[in-house]
Formats: sequence, C-alpha cells, structure tokens
Amino acid sequence: MAKELKDLTKRSVDYSRWYNELVVKADLAEQSPVRGCMVIKPYGYAIWESIQQNLDARFKATGVQNAYFPLLIPKSYLSKEAEHVEGFAKECAVVTHYRLKTNDEGNGVVVDPAAKLEEELIIRPTSETTIWNTFRGWIQSWRDLPLLCNQWCNVMRWEMRTRLFLRTSEFLWQEGHTAHATREEAEIRAKQMLDVYADFAKDVLAIPMVKGVKSATERFAGALDTYTIEGMMQDGKALQSGTSHFLGQNFGKAFDVKFVNKDNQEEYAWATSWGVSTRLMGALIMSHSDDNGLVLPPHVAPIQVVIVPIFKNGEQEKFDAVLGELTKKLQTKGIRVKYDNAENKRPGFKFADYELKGVPVRLVMGGRDLENGTIEVTRRDTLEKETLSFEGIEERVVSLLEEIQENIYQKALKLREEKTYTCTTYDDFKERIKDGGFFVYDWDGTPETEAQLKADTQATIRCIPNDVSQDNLGTDMISGKPAVARVYIARSY
Amino acid sequence: MAKELKDLTKRSVDYSRWYNELVVKADLAEQSPVRGCMVIKPYGYAIWESIQQNLDARFKATGVQNAYFPLLIPKSYLSKEAEHVEGFAKECAVVTHYRLKTNDEGNGVVVDPAAKLEEELIIRPTSETTIWNTFRGWIQSWRDLPLLCNQWCNVMRWEMRTRLFLRTSEFLWQEGHTAHATREEAEIRAKQMLDVYADFAKDVLAIPMVKGVKSATERFAGALDTYTIEGMMQDGKALQSGTSHFLGQNFGKAFDVKFVNKDNQEEYAWATSWGVSTRLMGALIMSHSDDNGLVLPPHVAPIQVVIVPIFKNGEQEKFDAVLGELTKKLQTKGIRVKYDNAENKRPGFKFADYELKGVPVRLVMGGRDLENGTIEVTRRDTLEKETLSFEGIEERVVSLLEEIQENIYQKALKLREEKTYTCTTYDDFKERIKDGGFFVYDWDGTPETEAQLKADTQATIRCIPNDVSQDNLGTDMISGKPAVARVYIARSY
Repeated sequence: MAKELKDLTKRSVDYSRWYNELVVKADLAEQSPVRGCMVIKPYGYAIWESIQQNLDARFKATGVQNAYFPLLIPKSYLSKEAEHVEGFAKECAVVTHYRLKTNDEGNGVVVDPAAKLEEELIIRPTSETTIWNTFRGWIQSWRDLPLLCNQWCNVMRWEMRTRLFLRTSEFLWQEGHTAHATREEAEIRAKQMLDVYADFAKDVLAIPMVKGVKSATERFAGALDTYTIEGMMQDGKALQSGTSHFLGQNFGKAFDVKFVNKDNQEEYAWATSWGVSTRLMGALIMSHSDDNGLVLPPHVAPIQVVIVPIFKNGEQEKFDAVLGELTKKLQTKGIRVKYDNAENKRPGFKFADYELKGVPVRLVMGGRDLENGTIEVTRRDTLEKETLSFEGIEERVVSLLEEIQENIYQKALKLREEKTYTCTTYDDFKERIKDGGFFVYDWDGTPETEAQLKADTQATIRCIPNDVSQDNLGTDMISGKPAVARVYIARSY
Repeated sequence: MAKELKDLTKRSVDYSRWYNELVVKADLAEQSPVRGCMVIKPYGYAIWESIQQNLDARFKATGVQNAYFPLLIPKSYLSKEAEHVEGFAKECAVVTHYRLKTNDEGNGVVVDPAAKLEEELIIRPTSETTIWNTFRGWIQSWRDLPLLCNQWCNVMRWEMRTRLFLRTSEFLWQEGHTAHATREEAEIRAKQMLDVYADFAKDVLAIPMVKGVKSATERFAGALDTYTIEGMMQDGKALQSGTSHFLGQNFGKAFDVKFVNKDNQEEYAWATSWGVSTRLMGALIMSHSDDNGLVLPPHVAPIQVVIVPIFKNGEQEKFDAVLGELTKKLQTKGIRVKYDNAENKRPGFKFADYELKGVPVRLVMGGRDLENGTIEVTRRDTLEKETLSFEGIEERVVSLLEEIQENIYQKALKLREEKTYTCTTYDDFKERIKDGGFFVYDWDGTPETEAQLKADTQATIRCIPNDVSQDNLGTDMISGKPAVARVYIARSY
C-alpha cells in the first residue's frame, strides 16, 4: 500500500488520471467486466451508506416516505410523455426474453427464442413513468395529496464513455416523486428539495454548491423547470451534483392522474421529481482530496478517528488497556473510531493506508508517549502533527473534528471564489476557460448562442444562479445582443 | 377504510384469499403492470426498512461489510458452475439490446436492431457468479481472508405463478458472500448466519423458526449444504424464510479464486452465501395477523404506539398540550409513536385503520379521561382494552410493548407445537396433511421416496431439523426401508 501510494499521479500532472487512480487505490470502486458498470467496494460503499443515512433522515423530516417501484418498465410507457421519450428511450437496456436454454453442444446456454416477450421491457433509466402510472390508483381526491414518495435504487443508462462514480451505466441513486394539488405547492417542493441537497452538501460533504435553475436546453426531459446544485472541482470544472424538477402536469396528463379538488372539480395532479446519485462520491473525492489520497470531511467519514499503538514485543497489553479505554470514551461521544492494533502490519504501512483512505484524525501512541502521558495527533486535511496531553484528549478530538469539517469547507469555498470570474470579451474567455473556473456571463437567452458557446469552447451554461444579481444586464459577448439572463458558464464533468 | 375492513375475508373461510386481500388493504404492496413485479407501498416499505436496519446491524456485528455488485451478469458466467446454471439459467430476464429508436410511424419506440449486444446479459437471479469473478482480484493470500461481503439489492427470477411478497419475479433481498481459507471456517460461517437469521426472526419478527439442513434435492444449485429456517404459518404450511449455503470450493474453482496459504501452498477459497428477502414480509403477515388485519410485533412495527384524542370543537389545544407531552416522553424512551389529531377523519375510522395496520398499542383520550386523569389503552394482539391512570402511563406502555412482543411469539410457538405431529402410517399422513402441520418423518434417505411423497401429497421434506433427535430411527412409512434421517415434512408456500 505504501508503495502504491507513492505511485499516485499528482493532481498538477494529470488531474483526470489522479482521480481514476485514487478511486481504485483507496478501495472505493472498480470496473466490472460488464461494460460501464462498477463494483462499489466495501470502503466506498461505507461512504455511500453514510450519505444515504444522512439524506434519508433529511427527506423524512420533510414528510417524505420511502417505497419501491419495479425495475422494469414496459416499453410503451416511455412514449406516453413526448419529451421524456426523447430524453430517455435512446440508450437503455432492453429485456426481450425471459428464458435461456442449454445450447446444442450442451456446454453453454443460449437465449430461448420461444421465450420472447410480447412487449419489451426497459431497465429503468428513471421512474417517472412507472410511478405516475401507479399514482393513478393512489390519487382520487385532494385529501390524497400531497403524495411524497422516494426510492433508493439502481438505474441504468447505456453510457458510451464511463468513469467510476461520475458516469456509469448502472448507478445507485434516490429518486423522489411527489404529487400536489396546486402548481404553487409543487414549485415550492421542487425548490425545497434543492435546498435539502445543498444543505446536505454543505453540512456533510463540506462542498459549497451553487444553486440555480437550468436553461431550457439543459432541462430534464419532461420538466418545466430543472433546479440544480453545481459544485466546483479542484480543476475548476463544474460537476452537476443533484437536480430537482418541477414537472408541471406533464406526467399527470400522460398517465391520467386526476383528483377532485376542494371545489369538486377534476384536475390533473402537479408533479416534482428529484435525485442524487453515487455521482456525489465523485464530487466528494474531487472537491477535497490531495496528492496523498482521499480527504474525507469528518461528517461523512466511515472512520473518523484511527488509533494506532506502536509497541515492542510483550508491551501490547499495556497499550490495549489505555487505548481501548480511549476508544470506548470516543464511541460514547458518538465518534466512529477504529483501534488498529493488528500485528501483521507495520505502523508506517498503517499511517500511509489511513492517509490514503482519508481518515480525518490519527492518534498514535508510542512507548515514550505512554510514559509521559502524551499522544500524537495528526489531522488529515493539513497533515499537521502535534503531541498533546493524553488527559482530556477526547474533548480535543471532538472539537478537532469540527475544526477539520469547517476547514475543508472553507478551503473549497475559497477555491470557488478565487476561480469565479466575470466574462469580458469572448476571445479572453476562450483563452481563460482552458484553466477552468466558473464565469459570470450575460446571456442573450437564445439556444443558438448557447450551442455556439459549447461548440467553440466545450463550456456550457451550468445554471442561472440564485445568488447572482440579475440587475443591469449587459450585452452578450458572443452575439452582441442584449442579455436576458446572467448565468454561470463552465466546462463540466 | 372501515368499510374495506369489514370486507376482509376470514382466515377460516379462505386463508389464501385472506392473505392476498390483507396485503393490499393494509397498504403493504400491490401488483404492478409488469408481470409478477410488485410495488411496495410506503407502509409496507417502512416494515421492510425496519427489518433491514435490524438485520444489517446484526451482520455488521459479525464483521460483515456491505458492498455493491453489478445488476447485469454476462450470460457465459452462469455456465461456469455446472449445477448453478441448471438452477438459475432457466427463467431469467435477458437483456439483448441497448437502444430503442423511434418507429416508422413516429408515434412510438422500437428496439434498434443495430444495437444488439455481442453477449447477452442476465438480470441477476443471485450474484455468486459475478461476485466470485470479482473476488479473484481481491484474494491472493490467506491474509486477505476471510472476506465477508453483503449487498442489499433487487434480484429477478421469472416466476410463472406469483404472490405478493411470497413469490415475485423481482424481489428485494440481501445476499451475503464470504470467502474463507478453510473448509471448517466456511461451514461455521454458514451455520452462524443461519443462527443470525433465526435469532432475528425470534427477537424481532416473533416467529419461532425451525433450523435445519435441506435434503440434497432441495439444496441451492451449487451448494454442498443448504441450511434453512422454516416458519409455520397459521394454516400449518411451511414457509422457507431464509437460507445459508456452504458452497465448498465450487465457485472458487469455477472462477479460479486461489490464495497462498500459511504453508505457501496455493489453494482454492472456500465459500458461503446466505440470504433473506421480502419474503420475510409474507412470513410476518401470515404468522400473526388475524381477521381484523395485521398484527405486528412491536420490535418490527414502524408505528409502535398511536395516540388518538377525541375532542369537541374548541377543545383541541387542551388535548394537544397533554398528549403532545406524552408523545415526547415516549419518543425519549425510544418508542416509535404517532400522535394522530387529524380533524378530517373520525376517531372510529382511525381505530379501524390502525387496527388493520397492526399498530401494537392504541392510546385514546376523551373529554372524561382528560378530566379524570385517565387514558384508554388497547393492545392489538388481544384487542383487550383497559382504562389506566394517565400518570406514569409511559412506563406502562414500555412494559406493555414487551409483553405484546412476547405474547405474539408464544402464541406462534404454541401453534407450531400443537401442529407438529409424528407420522404413523402413510395413509394416516395423507389424510392429516390436508389440515396442515409439520410431520416428523423417518426417511429412507432416497430421492425416489422424496419424489413419491411430493407427487402423492404435495408435501416436501422441509429439513433435517437441528433440534430433533436422530436416535432410534424407524422404518420409512412410504418405502418400508430402514430410515437414515428424521426430517420434517409439510406442505409449503
């Protein structure tokens, strides 16, 4: 492991390769033999579980309930909502048969042509269609509304170019689907869930997200508005990290979901959907990690503190007594702590491994520490070491974890602020975008200009940000026309 | 709802219909338009989450870590283990294409023939093949062992006759997969996980499970031994509720998973796998519920206590103050409590609804109770009501929940004991099996006799139970040959 760590490509040399190597070396995930599908390894999955638990509690606090809807969707459902089929029917996994049989040579299996499905089934790329088909049976009256459902599941989109966590054919996610009696209530819900995502990203992942609304071109297929959180990675590129859609009555109409309102009139239900996925793992890694490996914010780290003793033969018991007690004290304070007294690995190997895995705090006690009543404390974010009194160390660890959480967030925020620029001329922009960054751009509002921007520079409109003033709009630097919106543009993952 | 409840078929009239109706009326699940696939509704899913959380903690306490492996399995993998392909390659969902395109009429989508996969992919019916293919990269030395992985996921087996929770084409489950350096260690792990299942079933689901080992005919495809927990439903039929397999080196050999042992010799790794599924929901429902609806043991109930006020106009605030405080006190004690002061439903409706949904304890306070300092307590398992002093009611509720848990378990245990018989003659058995029950049967050990039993009576060998003596075996009542094992036989789901 220590050797492997040395091999990690530096960010400054090749950021993209650094990421790909780190995901594998830190035991987060690996490619599977099935094209574009990944295996999430135990350490990576523990981080995902940490994300899930925290988000799930936040959803439930807003009244959302979990449920489960089928993996397979009849092909015809996709065609019911006109824009949705354009967006999702293209690259998807199609189930055509339901049986295999032994081949003629008797040494393998082949598809049984007799077991062809009457209608093909699609592995869900997203579940609006099947869920709104189900909602029809659940919604009759305004009393049945709002209906607030979420599911944690796997989805599949047949991607041509894949990267672990960032873009995989199969990925894990949550998809929330809500039905409402009024347009206003649905719009409020869509924005509320974006806030839940952004707050979670800040509080837990220590990522400052830009909140905003997508341009029409970048909207979810079937949405009237798509709200987004965009994170800036260390290379200045944007990563769309979560979206929340106001779907209007499009799915209500497509699947005939009507309710009787308080005035005894029939109306179509109003919809939202919102999701985050294992892509958040990519956001987490690329926001904070360094040339030594992962840097995990304490609030999401599966192991927050690791304690390593350095002992000579025959001394283990003494260390186990003292550090076992410390372990318990920290656990009592709700800290996820690991006491690693394994004898088959040397301390130096352990240090490098926990550094690579991004454990926020490392406590090391050697023979002299034991004598002197001290302990060495190393924080992963800054790699600073100090030797402290063992007495009361647990209080120091608790406050240190919060300091680290805050420091990691502030560092990411500072980077984003430093790399957020205002556009001047198009030529200037074309040159500067090569180094990444978010650019404030006064846009003429046309898809044509948006398309030209992308073709010329690979940059796209990330969103119309909530926290940027729309006053005194200038002239579009590309078309020279008057601007109608102030947006962020950036290259993205 | 009150009306719907009255419509619930009685168990004595048609047990099977009672079950089907109850699953739907209690808002647990419903059929989806995709053949054999179910929608798990929020209330049903909340029970499943309760099961998941408890089991997951028990797995982790034994050192198991969660991970995630791909949904799709290359067709050729299934053929690598000879018995496994026989068992699982037959009825499975086959992905043959990865794209749809707009049809010629422009009003729908069709499979794009140009997007045919070179090798078809199977939706996992179980993941031994893909996981052992991955384990090959994770295991080199005895130091990498044991490897203890679990995943919570969906799987698919194309079933002809389906019933909600009991047998569905798609279902949710956990599948544990472990790799070991020695045969002995793997066998111990397989048995340990069966104990985890049985303890969980007893402690949480209040179901007394028979633990035992399957006959060769009933083994998992690819296993050397299959351990099982078998529950007795109220109609005397058996429900296989969880299995744990000792797989020997079959998958190690099939996927070339070798390790260097302590003596520096190469060996194939030893394997186990073990799983429980949403079928446990069926076991839970059929073990305890009655003609009034669900009966949920408190340890698994999403709502353990419901508090309903009965107030006149203008009185609500007084009730909210008193009962809001009680709600908080109960929550502080870790109880899952719901205070239902909704005004749009009458108390009688609420009572029937919570009864149907199996909430273990109902607390009702009316105006006279408020004056007198009393509260009405109704337990769901016996439907007994008593009026108690409001003062200190929270302590009573805590102990009552434990009494209910124990009572539900004892009732199920008593039923099983009463309906467990010893076989005399085959004619006698054929008559008595019509009324259900587990029969102790001294079996000659041949698959032929086993097949005849099934053909004649629809009963099967459920297992060779751990807790039944194998001493003084008699003569097989079917073949007349000397018995080699004492087994339980029963009809089953």
